Amino acid sequence: MSLTRSDVAARVLADCVPEPVDAFEAFAPVNIALCKYWGKRNALLNLPVNDSLSVSLAKKGSTTKVCWLPEQAEDEVILNGDAVDRDSSFYKKVVAHADLFRSLVPGALRVETVNSVATGAGLASSASGFAALTRALAGVYGLPLNDEQLSILARMGSGSASRSVYEGFVRWHKGVRADGMDSLARPLSEIWPDLRVGVLTLTSEVKKTGSREGMQRTVDSAILYGAWPEQAERDIARIEHAIAVRDFTLLGATSEQNALAMHATMLASWPPLLYWQPESVAVLQKVWQLRADGLQVYATMDAGPNVKLLFEAGSEADVRLAFPDIDVVVPFG
Amino acid sequence: MSLTRSDVAARVLADCVPEPVDAFEAFAPVNIALCKYWGKRNALLNLPVNDSLSVSLAKKGSTTKVCWLPEQAEDEVILNGDAVDRDSSFYKKVVAHADLFRSLVPGALRVETVNSVATGAGLASSASGFAALTRALAGVYGLPLNDEQLSILARMGSGSASRSVYEGFVRWHKGVRADGMDSLARPLSEIWPDLRVGVLTLTSEVKKTGSREGMQRTVDSAILYGAWPEQAERDIARIEHAIAVRDFTLLGATSEQNALAMHATMLASWPPLLYWQPESVAVLQKVWQLRADGLQVYATMDAGPNVKLLFEAGSEADVRLAFPDIDVVVPFG
Repeated sequence: MSLTRSDVAARVLADCVPEPVDAFEAFAPVNIALCKYWGKRNALLNLPVNDSLSVSLAKKGSTTKVCWLPEQAEDEVILNGDAVDRDSSFYKKVVAHADLFRSLVPGALRVETVNSVATGAGLASSASGFAALTRALAGVYGLPLNDEQLSILARMGSGSASRSVYEGFVRWHKGVRADGMDSLARPLSEIWPDLRVGVLTLTSEVKKTGSREGMQRTVDSAILYGAWPEQAERDIARIEHAIAVRDFTLLGATSEQNALAMHATMLASWPPLLYWQPESVAVLQKVWQLRADGLQVYATMDAGPNVKLLFEAGSEADVRLAFPDIDVVVPFG
Repeated sequence: MSLTRSDVAARVLADCVPEPVDAFEAFAPVNIALCKYWGKRNALLNLPVNDSLSVSLAKKGSTTKVCWLPEQAEDEVILNGDAVDRDSSFYKKVVAHADLFRSLVPGALRVETVNSVATGAGLASSASGFAALTRALAGVYGLPLNDEQLSILARMGSGSASRSVYEGFVRWHKGVRADGMDSLARPLSEIWPDLRVGVLTLTSEVKKTGSREGMQRTVDSAILYGAWPEQAERDIARIEHAIAVRDFTLLGATSEQNALAMHATMLASWPPLLYWQPESVAVLQKVWQLRADGLQVYATMDAGPNVKLLFEAGSEADVRLAFPDIDVVVPFG
């Protein structure tokens, strides 16, 4: 019989003695994967096909406050100041995640989340959201969990949330166990103060196909996906090496190729999956032209139309000139 | 030692006794591949990795007149009424192709080609051009070659020219021989009078990266290309079946997925290869919306930004309404 999320949560929380408090607030950053997570070996537990590696975006992310309301009948979920409808999938996902902890401490919760990035537009709000929620739940129940345990629990809410538990460069190890107790993220020790991530928000429309569904469609229908694990394995080794020796060209080129290869697997799915807008192509072409002109700037894209640029501090002025609307983040600020 | 094109041409022409005439004109249609040719096992002889299958576009193509001018010193090449510079790659390619025959009958040639589609914009002008040139050369030298021999010779000029030797549905058999004497196209017997191909010319700019170079870059650098032969093999079987049972949905869906999978392998190359313009994405999204609204229309794209639509006669009015600039071709008119 296959394991449920609750089974795994029970294993993580086995030795915990809860000491609930009234309220707890936590922050988690969004993260941009340089080597992408795309495809699951276990869809229920969010166990990935491949290792992935990201950089967290410092102060950009989700702040989540959880209040324990044992007198109240039903959970409340508030997103960016607005009460979320109880019939929405967002509400249900938050409550289902809270339920993983609820066997220890019964009672309703109020979950208030504020995202500093657009929700559901491929800007990784679910990663920061589930990481912040996991931290806040652990906090409100007074559970002495370490970051790796938080990473496992956050991963069951949203795969890439496993990485948003940390700042800086983070590698999510896919693990091999059926229960996923070894599928968790760990931070890299290296920092890169000159690294910049520029976010170009072309649209904040909610995408038609969520990453969960998109990923599954790719795995189920794209013959080209068969070559993706090899791509990811090669790329993550190159990226770790680039970080270790601080080779920006290798970091940028590998990240861009990895992102485009992921989008390639989507395009080769059926029905075809294309998160791009016409403007996404225009931005990519502009990036390639800038590079041809000698500027070291690379693009990465997640399951959405928006483009993120990778560059170093020395190129920032030129990048800003080319993309006046860019939002520049200093990951190691 | 590896075979040259001349070696292969000598084998094809081995038993031919030339009877030259002053001039010969030939026409060959462009063809749109429903299962694409992408990747070579021998770059010199244009021997492909996979079988491909196309439909020829009736009257749309190249008309080439070759005049035998034994008194003249140098070849002349005229494209769409303009003399082509002797230093251009176009001139050199035409002359190199003529040279395959020239061992039989020396003397300069004048080659006049008129294309009814834009040259070098991913509209398969090189396919029709080399097929028409091959036919015209055979004609001017009075060589009694059959279509399969013409297909082999045309293929050495441009791979997809092997298919432009025929009208209708055509399958290019990749062959297994080192000399490529079994790598040639044959027509399918089926016709499909209701089939329509709509050409949307978004730009007639000459592309920066030719298909020859693009193909090589994909084979050399895209890990995802490793899964392409399997994709092509599955798709060509489905397309032949769809033609045999006249299942338009299967034909359209398989052709679209095959084209997008080919573009996916390009996108996964390094440097990334994207023949699309922003408008290409807009057209694809419009096609998908029309399909969601119930219209049976599918897209295919070659190594260029332009989009070709596949539909049946019954949908033509709706397709024209959605794309007023479309150029509709009746392949079996």
